[in-house]
Amino acid sequence: MKALGRQILVEYYDCDADIINDVAQIENILLSATRAAKASIISHNFHKFSPHGVSGTIVIAESHVAIHTWPEYNYAAVDIFTCGETIDPWTIQEYIKDSFLSKNVSSIEMKRGLFKVAPGEELLFKPKDAGKVNILN
Amino acid sequence: MKALGRQILVEYYDCDADIINDVAQIENILLSATRAAKASIISHNFHKFSPHGVSGTIVIAESHVAIHTWPEYNYAAVDIFTCGETIDPWTIQEYIKDSFLSKNVSSIEMKRGLFKVAPGEELLFKPKDAGKVNILN
Repeated sequence: MKALGRQILVEYYDCDADIINDVAQIENILLSATRAAKASIISHNFHKFSPHGVSGTIVIAESHVAIHTWPEYNYAAVDIFTCGETIDPWTIQEYIKDSFLSKNVSSIEMKRGLFKVAPGEELLFKPKDAGKVNILN
Repeated sequence: MKALGRQILVEYYDCDADIINDVAQIENILLSATRAAKASIISHNFHKFSPHGVSGTIVIAESHVAIHTWPEYNYAAVDIFTCGETIDPWTIQEYIKDSFLSKNVSSIEMKRGLFKVAPGEELLFKPKDAGKVNILN
């Protein structure tokens, strides 16, 4: 079995509450993290809620990054979904951990899109691989 | 332990390739699915890739929905992340299944943001609950 994508679900506990309640800082951190992993950013949307919390998504050529924060619990949920061999989702996970000053992180890596292939073969056609993809709209 | 959010990771196999390669149809289906679940849509971004595939995210007041499709494998990966008691993520999962004509669906439900609470107590403060939230930007 080979997978088209991989996804890390990250629970960032014991974060700095001010940082994870600041929509501009969060947007900067997540965009910088995806750039550090050499992902190709296509679009991004971040929103601040009242009285607390931020939600946002970044669509990248290699899939997406999404975040929801609960500053009142010092907690942020982040999903990092990637495909292709060109980027390492753990680069993004570590960048965010350091930036949020999280003292307690729990991560699960999942495989997405499992297909049976002949021994030694690969799932060769990955349209979302960075560098191979043309974005139409 | 109580959870702030719940997330369904869905693998839609054996989908109709034309439907899951059509960015306008996918956008309509996912927006209709979130509305059917009475979610509050804040923003959405969908993109078509060349030669195949669509990626998109919808930020909802209750968290997000994200999709990536590989029409050449008749496969779509969808994440449905919700918080609060007002919407049922499975309404969204079923709406998409029917619309993509998927004949083989695999779903996992995860709890996100687990906290210890005293017996009988709830995590009362859920800023992203629909109807309680003010969107600032």
